[in-house]
Amino acid sequence: MTGGEGFRFTPRMPKALAAVLYESGKPLVIEEVDVAEPQAGEVMVRMKAAGVCHSDLHVMKGDLPMPAPIILGHEGAGIVEAVGPGVISVKPGDAVWPIWRSSCGRCDYCQQGRPALCDLGTAMRFTGLMPDGKTRFRNSKGDSVRHYAGVSTFSSISTMPEAAVVKIEGDFPLWKAALISCGVITGIGAVTHAAQVRPGSTVAVFGCGGIGLNIIQGARMISAKQIIAVDTVASKEVHARTMGATHFIDSTTCDPVKAIKDLTGGLGVDFSFEAIGLPGPIEQAFDSLRKGGTCVVAGICRGDARAQINANQLLYAEKTLKGSLYGSMRPRIDLPRLMDLHQTGALKLDELLTRTWRLDQINEAYASLERGEVARSLIVWD
Amino acid sequence: MTGGEGFRFTPRMPKALAAVLYESGKPLVIEEVDVAEPQAGEVMVRMKAAGVCHSDLHVMKGDLPMPAPIILGHEGAGIVEAVGPGVISVKPGDAVWPIWRSSCGRCDYCQQGRPALCDLGTAMRFTGLMPDGKTRFRNSKGDSVRHYAGVSTFSSISTMPEAAVVKIEGDFPLWKAALISCGVITGIGAVTHAAQVRPGSTVAVFGCGGIGLNIIQGARMISAKQIIAVDTVASKEVHARTMGATHFIDSTTCDPVKAIKDLTGGLGVDFSFEAIGLPGPIEQAFDSLRKGGTCVVAGICRGDARAQINANQLLYAEKTLKGSLYGSMRPRIDLPRLMDLHQTGALKLDELLTRTWRLDQINEAYASLERGEVARSLIVWD
Repeated sequence: MTGGEGFRFTPRMPKALAAVLYESGKPLVIEEVDVAEPQAGEVMVRMKAAGVCHSDLHVMKGDLPMPAPIILGHEGAGIVEAVGPGVISVKPGDAVWPIWRSSCGRCDYCQQGRPALCDLGTAMRFTGLMPDGKTRFRNSKGDSVRHYAGVSTFSSISTMPEAAVVKIEGDFPLWKAALISCGVITGIGAVTHAAQVRPGSTVAVFGCGGIGLNIIQGARMISAKQIIAVDTVASKEVHARTMGATHFIDSTTCDPVKAIKDLTGGLGVDFSFEAIGLPGPIEQAFDSLRKGGTCVVAGICRGDARAQINANQLLYAEKTLKGSLYGSMRPRIDLPRLMDLHQTGALKLDELLTRTWRLDQINEAYASLERGEVARSLIVWD
Repeated sequence: MTGGEGFRFTPRMPKALAAVLYESGKPLVIEEVDVAEPQAGEVMVRMKAAGVCHSDLHVMKGDLPMPAPIILGHEGAGIVEAVGPGVISVKPGDAVWPIWRSSCGRCDYCQQGRPALCDLGTAMRFTGLMPDGKTRFRNSKGDSVRHYAGVSTFSSISTMPEAAVVKIEGDFPLWKAALISCGVITGIGAVTHAAQVRPGSTVAVFGCGGIGLNIIQGARMISAKQIIAVDTVASKEVHARTMGATHFIDSTTCDPVKAIKDLTGGLGVDFSFEAIGLPGPIEQAFDSLRKGGTCVVAGICRGDARAQINANQLLYAEKTLKGSLYGSMRPRIDLPRLMDLHQTGALKLDELLTRTWRLDQINEAYASLERGEVARSLIVWD
């Protein structure tokens, strides 16, 4: 325990099986934890599926340090187990999405339609604590265990603020809901909300992981003319083409900037995306733009990562470089819309899921992700 | 002559007095040149005022190399002396603005409202030639002399495409018109069109030269709450405050990023602007932003200048970095509007002009600009 006071636990509190990070660089520890019952304005969720996402890996490796011990996992879907006093938007038995940036609904950011920037969620993300400065998890030694992004979906049961849950209406498969709640919304929103790609545009996407594939899919949904996928792993081509890529560049075999210019009559693309989180590909994505183009960075970088941007090009070619967090969308409004888009056939989900794992396989799941073997995988519970 | 064929000159062609750049790093040479009469679609302009702008200095110093010999000068105002066949928008005797990015009106950029990106103007800027690949100037040795940005306002007479002139209606002082045509439109547009600052916003402006002062003015016109001016020359404070700055930071005496955070309750500003063209201030302007903020670069940088942008901040704080060329405005529409705004009292012009020079004083004028002695100065003709 490194700061952050534990909640007062009582004997009747439920036990959960969770994957706990004690130290960056070490494997996650699968162990039983106590979970505090939901207090006023809180919801206890029994998890059904949780995404194996690269962002958590950044914390595991220490690239984005977090206080430990902590239960990671930030995307998923589950069933409400119990609610605290005053909770009105969900009731026990409801299916819900945990959302990894809680938002207050009242601040400037929320009312600009940018809830991912709300201070409420930002604080929970960086402290690993609930808004009252305490945690709702305790390990067998009695130490408080922190929350990741307010949701900690790598626990079979998790208690979170009502602000962190969105009701899933109807009879929607929860493994599909889990896919929507992070990689899909982040990728699609980068295209539709951050970049605002128009039909007929040319697009380049650096990185064909969980976010990159959904950027490709977003560009397809919005009828981009050319969708050029770039990755260092040649086997990603099949996933990229399935999601809508019209071209694939293996950047280990050529200069991707030159290849993109060649594919666009020497001009470069209208929109480029970086879905890896490394300075080199950010610079390449920026350099791949045509005059007036926009480059959106959706990949999470180390805290000290700096991209070297040609300032003369920025000005003379009037380029734009922008970051997009959580797809620059409003999860409370847009997660249900994305579900609808899958139901109408516009949004592909089945093709994204490479495989599922049990929670006790989570370290293996991350090793597989690092080897580039999966488009997207999920931890699932029966 | 280093490439670019000269036009066929005839004995009756007019003579002009011009400031010619023969070699970067050397003073401009004041000499008589022949000016070809306007051909089809061309306009000959007798210059009345021309701006002494930092952009030309970049070419003089070789930071932005151009083929020489060349007549610089890209902002100004004058009277139409003659028009070639087919010219319909102006006639001899009309007052006009030369505009430093000609635009075709038909391409994707023009029809997006981004005429500064039009290939027509871009090509003239980088070749120093008219669209037919020739020049309309010849020196006493018979060598062709290139055009700068299609307009070459540092010549008492200049021939340019009709696409490069905008009629000035009414009886507007041409020295004021000259101020509007570059520094004013570039600064105001960076605020209103590129950044789209909203009333009540907080703003920081790095650099209080000709563009920076108009960024400050634009922020005042749009009712920004705080307008924090930053410069390394303490004497700029008086100009900055005249144009609307609410605070002034002398960045030689403190860390301007910290000072801006201190002035904004630790948050940073909604919008920051860089009007110098150096990587350091660009990085500071970016770092001065609050979450969700936008940094606009309007200062012209060396061709190889690279700003190191914190990629993690870009993403987690959803910051935007963008370049703005010519204020991201449409000069043909917006120059007359800016003139109107001066006439209604909203736009200050008189306060911008520090002094005037004769063309034969141009090297002294640039030395004074480099020493930071002037807000804006003009070359004027009787």
